[in-house]
Amino acid sequence: MSSESTVGFIGLGNMGASMAKNLLKKNYPVIVYDLNTEAVNALKESGATSLGSPVEIASKAKTIVTMLPSSPHVREVYTGKQGILNAVQPGSLMLDCSTIDTAVAQEMHSLAAKKNTVYMDCPVSGGVVAARDALLTFMVGGEAGDFEKAKIILSHMGKNIVHCGPTGTGQAAKICNNMLLGISMIGTAEAMHLGKKLGLDPKVLAKVLNTSSGRCWSSEMYNPCPGVIEGIPSSNNYQGGFGSGLMVKDLGLAQNSATATQSPTPMGSLAHQIYRIMCNQGYDKKDFASVYLFLENMQKSS
Amino acid sequence: MSSESTVGFIGLGNMGASMAKNLLKKNYPVIVYDLNTEAVNALKESGATSLGSPVEIASKAKTIVTMLPSSPHVREVYTGKQGILNAVQPGSLMLDCSTIDTAVAQEMHSLAAKKNTVYMDCPVSGGVVAARDALLTFMVGGEAGDFEKAKIILSHMGKNIVHCGPTGTGQAAKICNNMLLGISMIGTAEAMHLGKKLGLDPKVLAKVLNTSSGRCWSSEMYNPCPGVIEGIPSSNNYQGGFGSGLMVKDLGLAQNSATATQSPTPMGSLAHQIYRIMCNQGYDKKDFASVYLFLENMQKSS
Repeated sequence: MSSESTVGFIGLGNMGASMAKNLLKKNYPVIVYDLNTEAVNALKESGATSLGSPVEIASKAKTIVTMLPSSPHVREVYTGKQGILNAVQPGSLMLDCSTIDTAVAQEMHSLAAKKNTVYMDCPVSGGVVAARDALLTFMVGGEAGDFEKAKIILSHMGKNIVHCGPTGTGQAAKICNNMLLGISMIGTAEAMHLGKKLGLDPKVLAKVLNTSSGRCWSSEMYNPCPGVIEGIPSSNNYQGGFGSGLMVKDLGLAQNSATATQSPTPMGSLAHQIYRIMCNQGYDKKDFASVYLFLENMQKSS
Repeated sequence: MSSESTVGFIGLGNMGASMAKNLLKKNYPVIVYDLNTEAVNALKESGATSLGSPVEIASKAKTIVTMLPSSPHVREVYTGKQGILNAVQPGSLMLDCSTIDTAVAQEMHSLAAKKNTVYMDCPVSGGVVAARDALLTFMVGGEAGDFEKAKIILSHMGKNIVHCGPTGTGQAAKICNNMLLGISMIGTAEAMHLGKKLGLDPKVLAKVLNTSSGRCWSSEMYNPCPGVIEGIPSSNNYQGGFGSGLMVKDLGLAQNSATATQSPTPMGSLAHQIYRIMCNQGYDKKDFASVYLFLENMQKSS
């Protein structure tokens, strides 16, 4: 492949490392950067090259994927002293797969446009297994023409590539989804816990919910009550999965957007507070289904 | 059929009338009672006979189905001056399909047992269309042997007949389901409304939710945002369907059970309060998906 096809990849966490590997599998030359040198070395063993900063990546690659933990990291990687935008080549396409504030995504897009480049918000849904198997869903915000170019790259890392609308709408869709996810996970935990206290067998209750109008992804695929579904974090002491700390971050982004648009979100706000309390009580590294355990513990101590 | 097969049916509302008709279709002799004489006359046209009180029904039928609006009605029909238990025949089977307080169901069961009869809680899920088409789900609480007898009758009115456990667990399963339903409906309304304010097309957002972890019955089958799904109450000015007034009743039952068992249900409690406010603001006869409209109106007036 020509050097035009080189992809810069910044952010090699659990998600990013798998995504970069999937680009390598499709024979793209990939140049990586991460603060964590172990993560960089692992990618080099898979065939990537590396550089010492985002700005160096930007001078070598016209397609750049970023997969970072939160808004401040994105700001630093794009606009910091060693940031991408200091050396980005005109005509470059930057695909930011991080889940961040809609307003920050819009700001990055504006700054990128001043350099005759395109920044698109492309947050993902699906978790580490979907990242490994290239089965992610990408929610993309930006112009239709740019979306077609983005899709070529993203389709090597995911299965559903959805154009959500103008810049920022990818992030908007992601935080709306995760707000509803947080709400329905806590709701499922409350219903399962109450049912158990009322004498119901958790498996029987799950069966009733899943054939009735209470069913949701959290009750069907990720039931928070231990033992109802094997092979998921709730049946493994809430290890692995999607940490409560990440959920509280996403619910905080939803609250920022709700405040900016004066949208009432009473349940979203309560979900945010519940996960914040959980994180303060030591649940931050546990899977977010551990809200079931939190409810049990809250009862015991009362 | 012998007179042993006669079924007494008390409570001929939207649900009960259809359920009684389905028993008539299976050639059961059905004796009906309701305060509403129009409802009684409609059933007589379908082949039922009628009597003037629950106590008279109890003296003629050893299988009795009750389908009543709430706990006080059940108490009156079973234990009132003209109540079933004044004349119930030993060996009778009483199937109460009403959605009521778990504690009231347990009390009725105890009183029935003193007369050498069986009272079972058999609340339903599925709504008026499922009632008409005999596709209801019955959640049944009681002894396994009694369940087998109940199933013979209930299977003429429903498709899924689930034995939930001992007396009261049918009601428990029902209120856990409806609590989760109320929570996820409000959550879906908040997410759809926030997304729209953030510039997302509601149909695109629904598609993202329904292929992601936010999906739930309310987003997939009963989306509260007008125009996303045709042929449901949200696309018909929230007419028909399941009224907010009924939802606030069920959420109140969940709160009673949560208090009785000291189970923390923060989201269930907030859902109850939101539907209570809605009912006080005139949404009680509108379908419960009208929480979307309520959020829109709360924004406009702020």
